Amino acid sequence: MQNPLTPEAQLAEIERGVVDIISRDDLLKKLKENRPLKIKAGFDPTAPDLHLGHTVLINKLRIFQQLGHDIYFLIGDYTGMIGDPTGKSATRPPLTREQVLENAKSYQEQVFKILDAEKTHVVFNSQWFDLMTAADMIRLASQQTVSRMMERDDFTKRFKNQQPIAIHEFLYPLVQGYDSVALQADVELGGTDQTFNLLMGRTLQSRYEQAPQVCITLPLLEGLDGVHKMSKSLGNYVGIQEPAGTIYQKILSMPDSLIGRYFELLSFKTLTDIQNLMAEMQAGRNPQDLKKLLALELIERFYDAETAANAHKSTGNRLVDGELPIDLPTVEVSLEGRESLSMISILARAGLTKNAAQAKDALGRGVVKVDGKGVNAQHTLTLGFNGIVQASKKAIARVIVVS
Amino acid sequence: MQNPLTPEAQLAEIERGVVDIISRDDLLKKLKENRPLKIKAGFDPTAPDLHLGHTVLINKLRIFQQLGHDIYFLIGDYTGMIGDPTGKSATRPPLTREQVLENAKSYQEQVFKILDAEKTHVVFNSQWFDLMTAADMIRLASQQTVSRMMERDDFTKRFKNQQPIAIHEFLYPLVQGYDSVALQADVELGGTDQTFNLLMGRTLQSRYEQAPQVCITLPLLEGLDGVHKMSKSLGNYVGIQEPAGTIYQKILSMPDSLIGRYFELLSFKTLTDIQNLMAEMQAGRNPQDLKKLLALELIERFYDAETAANAHKSTGNRLVDGELPIDLPTVEVSLEGRESLSMISILARAGLTKNAAQAKDALGRGVVKVDGKGVNAQHTLTLGFNGIVQASKKAIARVIVVS
Repeated sequence: MQNPLTPEAQLAEIERGVVDIISRDDLLKKLKENRPLKIKAGFDPTAPDLHLGHTVLINKLRIFQQLGHDIYFLIGDYTGMIGDPTGKSATRPPLTREQVLENAKSYQEQVFKILDAEKTHVVFNSQWFDLMTAADMIRLASQQTVSRMMERDDFTKRFKNQQPIAIHEFLYPLVQGYDSVALQADVELGGTDQTFNLLMGRTLQSRYEQAPQVCITLPLLEGLDGVHKMSKSLGNYVGIQEPAGTIYQKILSMPDSLIGRYFELLSFKTLTDIQNLMAEMQAGRNPQDLKKLLALELIERFYDAETAANAHKSTGNRLVDGELPIDLPTVEVSLEGRESLSMISILARAGLTKNAAQAKDALGRGVVKVDGKGVNAQHTLTLGFNGIVQASKKAIARVIVVS
Repeated sequence: MQNPLTPEAQLAEIERGVVDIISRDDLLKKLKENRPLKIKAGFDPTAPDLHLGHTVLINKLRIFQQLGHDIYFLIGDYTGMIGDPTGKSATRPPLTREQVLENAKSYQEQVFKILDAEKTHVVFNSQWFDLMTAADMIRLASQQTVSRMMERDDFTKRFKNQQPIAIHEFLYPLVQGYDSVALQADVELGGTDQTFNLLMGRTLQSRYEQAPQVCITLPLLEGLDGVHKMSKSLGNYVGIQEPAGTIYQKILSMPDSLIGRYFELLSFKTLTDIQNLMAEMQAGRNPQDLKKLLALELIERFYDAETAANAHKSTGNRLVDGELPIDLPTVEVSLEGRESLSMISILARAGLTKNAAQAKDALGRGVVKVDGKGVNAQHTLTLGFNGIVQASKKAIARVIVVS
């Protein structure tokens, strides 16, 4: 198909919100070839639970798709099926082929909320690596030097700190890079933490006498705390499979300082529209209005227009007892070194009761609820908890348990 | 078979002339199991041309064989058939399977002058590595750390000097070490320059839940110059396939200071016999007598008793024109930076003619011979040449061309 936009206009769309393009000239040259480019993005083969942070990249893939290019959604199942060969990490058991396929299915359910399923090639790198012999791996390993590999941030640090690096860890970036050779990728996208690996693909393609891929790095989205990278384990995330009401509440509870950033990286509105909204906020418009707009756009993307329209009335499946106020406060409660906190501590520290005695009283009366479910004084909350706690109809807050 | 010697007596035989045994206790324990041990020694798959330096190790294998143990003569053809995967070394093209088999045949012809062919297992590591997948290689690589590998002398130096180390070079010691796992080796022998690789076998066997092999390192034999390690490229060697007369002449031309060392590492005489000989020499016996004894023993080993008895009269296949004097002088002629030397320079510098004019004259008359073959003034000699040059019946010498 002939692309409706000029190469320069395509480049402008692609450049929005990216951190780096290596190189811009190479990309423009490829766009001028006026053919569907092969766009690669690699994903872990573990069970996915995507959040807004992941969608920054997926949104960019969508742009490429809309511009008529071919998306290769690559699942790195080959090394996943090897697991941790040192056997030291009990948390990284080898995945079976069945698990990989199941996880792939789950990926597709999630990413096809954003990408066009018809135009997305889901591929597995076991497809080419399963055919490789030990000798092929030796030849692949010969394509890079030890000192070049040592330049990767985490390897540099671990070597300096005398933390062990197993030799196969040097092979994994080569495996990832070789995927670009196997796919003959024109462009690879990744987070800024993936720069080294993206460049490895570029290097290996040259070695294997292919035109080197363009590497596009995308920013790591800040979580709802506005400080750390969005991550499930930090509890500062908005999962794309969360109930619409939860997404709504989480977006509305985020700091105002994040509004501009989230619009830039998550909204499909034009840059002009976003600039206008930001200007209105500067001029006095309630920041909650902008958050609502963003929440509605996201919920419509992950569900549909009707669900979006009703999200403010719903707390999804988690809170069933009445509506939540729009201005629901978010309170962080610190574990201060403990394993967990009792509900008495939670209520008192979150300011939902005046003191521990009142908290005990409320718990005794059976009116305290966590995510809409009644709890007693024995209930505890642990690190990463993020949900709605209420001590009465009025005393209600989103509580996040931090370390 | 029951071993005729006690474990302690076997150990004494094994210990003769070795540099190190890791560990002596482990070896004694294995010997006490009173079963044929699996003794591994690895060899390059390239075309072999063995010299006395190589026989130090082969002689030790012979000892193990005589003690009733099983010798595994391992040809590392797997990596040889990969060659230099970086493609940078034109001198290391991949070997074909035909070449490997041909070289193996040549090895056998040479080593079976020392070892009992019936009791020697010649094995190729491609036998197990050809079955290995890329994933198996990744698992193997996971068994060792980068910093441990960096401890290998040549890697340490190259990393410090910022000379590139290709990543597959880290895999080769693992390949060699894994051979011990595949063979379930009890003992591995190697030169002192192989210590790191021998220990790798020991480590990997532990990882693969095998009893770790005993590593025995053997000294690197000095060449005829008494200074450098014996090597073909330095021209200071005695090849085991050289003509009997050449071996005889070379041994007789070596410095007296080497006599004790050569007897210790090359002779099959008992230590007591050797000590007696050395004492006689101390007491005034002509060192040439001892050299003759050693030469005869070696020639008998590589040929037969009759050839040995006649070696002093013969110069083998190289010099056919009459006998060589026992006191044949050895003369080193230096290239002094040049690529080669003309016969005129050689004759004059070696003192075989009084000057260049006489040399020219002798060449003109067609009486000059190199290794028994007439040469003219156009003939040149290059680095490493080591042979008999004669300008007349009397003017004759072993000439070595050095840099």
